[in-house]
Parts: sequence; C-alpha cells; structure tokens
Amino acid sequence: MTYCLGIINRFGIVMASDSRTNAGVDYISAYKKLFDFSVPGDRVIIICSSGNLSITQGVITRLQRDINNEEKENLYTFSHLYDVARYIGNKTREIQELDRPWLEKDKIDYHCNFLLGGQIKGETPQLYLIYSQGNYIQATPETPFLQIGEAKYGKPILDRTVTGETPLEALAKCAVLSIDSTMKSNISVGPPIDVIMYNTNSFQLLHKLQLRLGDPYLAKIRKLWEEHVRHAFESMPNIEWKYEVQSYQEDVLID
Amino acid sequence: MTYCLGIINRFGIVMASDSRTNAGVDYISAYKKLFDFSVPGDRVIIICSSGNLSITQGVITRLQRDINNEEKENLYTFSHLYDVARYIGNKTREIQELDRPWLEKDKIDYHCNFLLGGQIKGETPQLYLIYSQGNYIQATPETPFLQIGEAKYGKPILDRTVTGETPLEALAKCAVLSIDSTMKSNISVGPPIDVIMYNTNSFQLLHKLQLRLGDPYLAKIRKLWEEHVRHAFESMPNIEWKYEVQSYQEDVLID
Repeated sequence: MTYCLGIINRFGIVMASDSRTNAGVDYISAYKKLFDFSVPGDRVIIICSSGNLSITQGVITRLQRDINNEEKENLYTFSHLYDVARYIGNKTREIQELDRPWLEKDKIDYHCNFLLGGQIKGETPQLYLIYSQGNYIQATPETPFLQIGEAKYGKPILDRTVTGETPLEALAKCAVLSIDSTMKSNISVGPPIDVIMYNTNSFQLLHKLQLRLGDPYLAKIRKLWEEHVRHAFESMPNIEWKYEVQSYQEDVLID
Repeated sequence: MTYCLGIINRFGIVMASDSRTNAGVDYISAYKKLFDFSVPGDRVIIICSSGNLSITQGVITRLQRDINNEEKENLYTFSHLYDVARYIGNKTREIQELDRPWLEKDKIDYHCNFLLGGQIKGETPQLYLIYSQGNYIQATPETPFLQIGEAKYGKPILDRTVTGETPLEALAKCAVLSIDSTMKSNISVGPPIDVIMYNTNSFQLLHKLQLRLGDPYLAKIRKLWEEHVRHAFESMPNIEWKYEVQSYQEDVLID
C-alpha cells in the first residue's frame, strides 16, 4: 500500500509520502509517489498519488505530456488551483475509462487517489484530495490535513498535534512521525520517504528531502519518539480500580 | 463500530472494549461487549465481541443458555481453553447458518469476531481470537495482543509499548490509551469502556472497571497523554533539510 499526507495552515503546506508499492505481500517494490511540477516564482504544484500504480502513472504521464506538448490546458497554464484539481480529476477519468473495464473483469482494484497541494500567484495556498471518481475535496481550517492510502495508523498523531497555529517546521516533523507510525504498524508502507515543505507566498519550494532506509534522522526521531512514548506511558497514573469483585455469578449478563 | 483488545504475557491478561454500537452514523447506542463467565477458584473466562450485534448477542445468549440448562458442553465444563474457543466458534457457525442467508439478501454485514481470554485450572493463561467463520488463532509471545473491530488507530501505541515483560498494571493503562486513541479518531467507538485485569494463577478476576463518559480517570489520562505527546513532539529535532532546490525543471519525473 501507500501512505501520503498533506497538511496546510496559514504558514504553508507540508506534503509527504512513502515509496512502497506492493502487489500482494510477495511483490514489493519502490516507486516515487510525490511529484513536483512547480514553476519558481509563478506556482508551486505538488502531487502525491496512491492506489493502482498503472492508473496513477498514467495520470502523471499525461500531466507531463500536456506540459511537453504545450497544450492549452496544462499544469502551467491554469490560474486557479481549483481548476488544476478538476483537470487532474478529468485525467483520472480518462484513464479509468480506458482501463477500468479490463481491471474489473479480473477483480483488480482500479481505485486511485491524489493529493494536490500548492499555490498559484494571486491565490492563497490550497490543498485538495482528488478521488478515483475524479471529484475532489479541499482541506479547511477545521481539518487542516488530508490523507490517502493507508491512513489510519498515522491519523492519531495528526489528531493530537496539528492545529492551525502549528509552525511549518513542526508540521514537517509531524508528517514524518505520522508516516513512521504507519511504517511501524504496516509493512506495506515503507521508505524512502519524500517530504516537502512550502512557505506561503514564497512561490518556490525551498525544502525537499528524501529519507532513505537507515537515514540517521529517521532512525534518530524513531528512537527518540519511542523513548518519549514509553516515558509518557510510564508516567500515566495507574488505573484506579473501583470494583474489586468478590462474587461473580450475579454479574454475568446483568448491567 | 466496536474496538476490543486483549493483551497477554506471563503476568496475566488484560482485556478491554468500548460500548458503542452503530447502524450508520444516525443510529448510535451503547451495548456491553465484554462478558465475564468466570467461576472463581476454577476458571476465568472473559469474552469480548465485535461485529453484527444480533449475531454476537445470539452467541452470548446460547453460551449462557447452555450453562443454565447444565448441558454436557458448556463454558463451565471444558478442561481446556482451546476447546472453549472451538465451542464458541461452533455457536457462531450455528447462528450464521440461521441468519446469514437473510442478512446477505439485504447486503447486511453478518460478520462478527470474538476475543476469548482466561485460564482454566491446570493450564496457563491463554488468549484467542475467534473469527466469523468459527476458526481461531491464539496470541503468542511474539505478538502478545489481539484486536477486533476498529483495530488500526489503537495499534501504534500497542506496537510501541507492549512487550512480554510489561507489568500487568502497565498493560491495563496501555489498553485504555489504545481505546482512547481510537475514540479520538473514530466517533463510532465510544464509552463506557470496560476493562479487566487478570493475574496469572489467581483463578479469579480481582480487577474490573467501567469507565463512563466524563470519568475523571479517563479525562485525566487523556489530558496527560496529549500533553506528553505534544511535549515529545516539540522535543523532536527539526528535519535536517539536505536539499535546497535552486532549479526545478530537471527534477520533474526524474529520480
């Protein structure tokens, strides 16, 4: 599986993804799932993908091809990120139309999702989740993060730490910890991890990092985090047991 | 949904469950999902259930009925917990046989799972997960916990804290925190939380607790845990960005 997430607040955007792709547990490989289509000074456009690899690669290839062919509509020509989301949704529908009937016949999952984050000159930064069906939602101040793929293991840390006022550097740490938690609980999510951090109104991507397996930073924060969690855990007060049972039978199936 | 978990090591067994049952988000109610069938001095038998409520209630009712009727095979007569797991599996198959075709017609989920934990005189403590199909697995020292229902949000904390050497009181805290993490991320899991703690070779259940909504202990550990997680998070070292991008185009779709 894959896990990608995006977080947005007034300071900017953080996006991150793992790189593991698997067809069953007996075929695991690494594919990049975070793509940078920025034009410095004019727009920052970051796309993360999850789901059927042939579908997502098809979409990304078509996005790149439209740029190369200087089509009227391509990632460099839109004035609004909202329209970019619609355009990516339409590309997804194109590929689904071509391949879905054949995948469906063999019961192969044809679903895919995209995260789209960035800022186009004249607009505020925005973050979208584009569904397999081509429709999309946008992150809002109430829920400043969006996730695709294996989202559950990495959600508790986001729920407990991310706010509209969290500094960007902290959001980036949070994204890495969220992916690390997922890697710890699900082997189908794995390194390298790609992370980007975008500062509002900078219109260029100054922070980008790939953390490979065994990367000292990744090892260090995993070790520190586990120490802290264990310490936090040890300092929790013991349960105050209120009910010391003397007789059992009357308890069964009553209350 | 439901979330129940069991943890076992040489010190004993901890089991816990939430009490929320929902049929869609517009019909939420509370049902007990942790049942105590112990006979002090002879056996401790705790059962947690998740899944279709009519199926799990049916199974629990039949278990109780066999006790009441003093059937040759009932929860009080088996000498091995392994056989108790098989017996519960068979009861599950009985109810599935009766109801499944009717539920299937209306596309209603008929699945259910049970956790079975306890100790029968002459044996060591054991913990089982019984599937909807009636088969079952047992917790082992390598993976000392089993979960049913909405398991994912509560797994990271178990992965990071539970070991074969964790004291029983700590396992109980861990179980409560695991359920609390799940409640925080999924509203279909909710209080009251039932928790039991069983000490190996005591053959009676001395610790049992129900934490209701607004329980001071639950509020206290949630607050403390969040403070610790935030503190841990703040003390993580910032990402050491290695790659400060100057030029973008050559980066797209390469590497």
